[in-house]
Amino acid sequence: MTASSHAITVEKICGDSAKSQADCVAVEEPLEIRLGYATPDGHTARSISITMRTPGSDAELASGFLFSETIIQSAQDIANIEHCGPAAGDTGNQNIIRIDLKPHVAVNLERLQRHFYTTSSCGVCGKSSLDALQAAGAAALTDSSVRFSRAVLSDMPRALRQQQQTFDATGGLHAAAAFNAKGEILVVREDVGRHNAVDKVVGALLARDQLPASGYGLMVSGRASFELMQKALLAGMPLLAAVSAPSSLAVALAKEFNVTLVGFLRGDTFNIYSGKDRIS
Amino acid sequence: MTASSHAITVEKICGDSAKSQADCVAVEEPLEIRLGYATPDGHTARSISITMRTPGSDAELASGFLFSETIIQSAQDIANIEHCGPAAGDTGNQNIIRIDLKPHVAVNLERLQRHFYTTSSCGVCGKSSLDALQAAGAAALTDSSVRFSRAVLSDMPRALRQQQQTFDATGGLHAAAAFNAKGEILVVREDVGRHNAVDKVVGALLARDQLPASGYGLMVSGRASFELMQKALLAGMPLLAAVSAPSSLAVALAKEFNVTLVGFLRGDTFNIYSGKDRIS
Repeated sequence: MTASSHAITVEKICGDSAKSQADCVAVEEPLEIRLGYATPDGHTARSISITMRTPGSDAELASGFLFSETIIQSAQDIANIEHCGPAAGDTGNQNIIRIDLKPHVAVNLERLQRHFYTTSSCGVCGKSSLDALQAAGAAALTDSSVRFSRAVLSDMPRALRQQQQTFDATGGLHAAAAFNAKGEILVVREDVGRHNAVDKVVGALLARDQLPASGYGLMVSGRASFELMQKALLAGMPLLAAVSAPSSLAVALAKEFNVTLVGFLRGDTFNIYSGKDRIS
Repeated sequence: MTASSHAITVEKICGDSAKSQADCVAVEEPLEIRLGYATPDGHTARSISITMRTPGSDAELASGFLFSETIIQSAQDIANIEHCGPAAGDTGNQNIIRIDLKPHVAVNLERLQRHFYTTSSCGVCGKSSLDALQAAGAAALTDSSVRFSRAVLSDMPRALRQQQQTFDATGGLHAAAAFNAKGEILVVREDVGRHNAVDKVVGALLARDQLPASGYGLMVSGRASFELMQKALLAGMPLLAAVSAPSSLAVALAKEFNVTLVGFLRGDTFNIYSGKDRIS
């Protein structure tokens, strides 16, 4: 048992039989992200997000979130990250994290995603979501020489699964991983929230100064939504591979911004929705 | 093909073979929810949420969302719901919906979920999430006579699956359903977002004046998070059954508020995490 899983007793039913048995569930707790930044009048701090997450890699989650929201561009924008406030009474986890930015970082909280649409002139639609992304600074990926072989992709679900430690105990976590063209996994993170798992991976890449991650693909254990596609694009990752289905808007985003999108990746069968030239 | 699925061409890879083929993906588009309500100075309207959703049942989604956020208590609080604004240029869907409330409804937008925690005195933790829920008006369910048999529960995944029309075409949608003790499904809704699928079910129950839905269980196609558990509780539903794993906080909520929680429901095997007395 780790901080990311929690021991409980469950009633296991199988046909007519029932027995009480020890089991584990994935931990879900709120994390508040506070941002400290310079203003014309000095330094201020604001709570900018509360997300339900699985404790662990909180600093990566918070910094990856700020990167995905285009508040920061690199690890050099961060002066300090640390937990603050009291440990939670019920679990002992620390559930508030504060990131202070360096004075040179101009913070425009309007950039936070929920404001994207309100500044879009053409109304609310799939197209406006893509336009808003462009307005926030996202650009189509230029072609690079990176190619992912079918063999590497086919092996990725197994490779990811092998590193999902908390999933093994609980069956209850999403996972995301960054992997290179050789099929080597650089970082794997798990979370009850799929967007959090990806933010943790992006935060880990940020801490290693590897953004834009133009040589890495992003593998996710579930479906490929617009939100995950957007995070891959902003991290400069040329490929998103998902075990399950993509949405229409994820496909549209992938095509518009030249990202390779693979779905239903299950062993040696998969679908390519966009950017098949990167798959050799 | 319906408005909830979209035809595309994909490259299907199977081992060494590759072929272009027609396929469908689940539609994901933003929906903006605008709320019109009385103020001391007259009537005002505000955009209160933008969610990525699958078009269809938008009125139910919006009213279910308002109910889950404790902004409204019954269908009688609603004066009018209608789409407004232009049809989206790329798909023709209408992606803005406006709900006007009757003058007697006192709106406190502070109740919106993201504010729950900031008013909690004991910091940010699992316990504070439960306290905030209580502060928002949620009370533990009192025992009623409703009982769900093992046979009814065991059949539910199959029954739900049978009604997931868009999932059949796309493999890419979450589903939620309200069902009674006889195993009859009253309403099924699908969405790319699991919280949206549940909001649509709650909105459908609201429109039929069946809230609190004390005679109905809620079945969901994926995992049971704190958020879904909270929606079931607020809708007065005594049971949440999930095909996959619950989180620690979903279990804590279920125990604290006397809701029956079933997970890993797969045919005649399942786990009971809370409230086993309701299962006969």
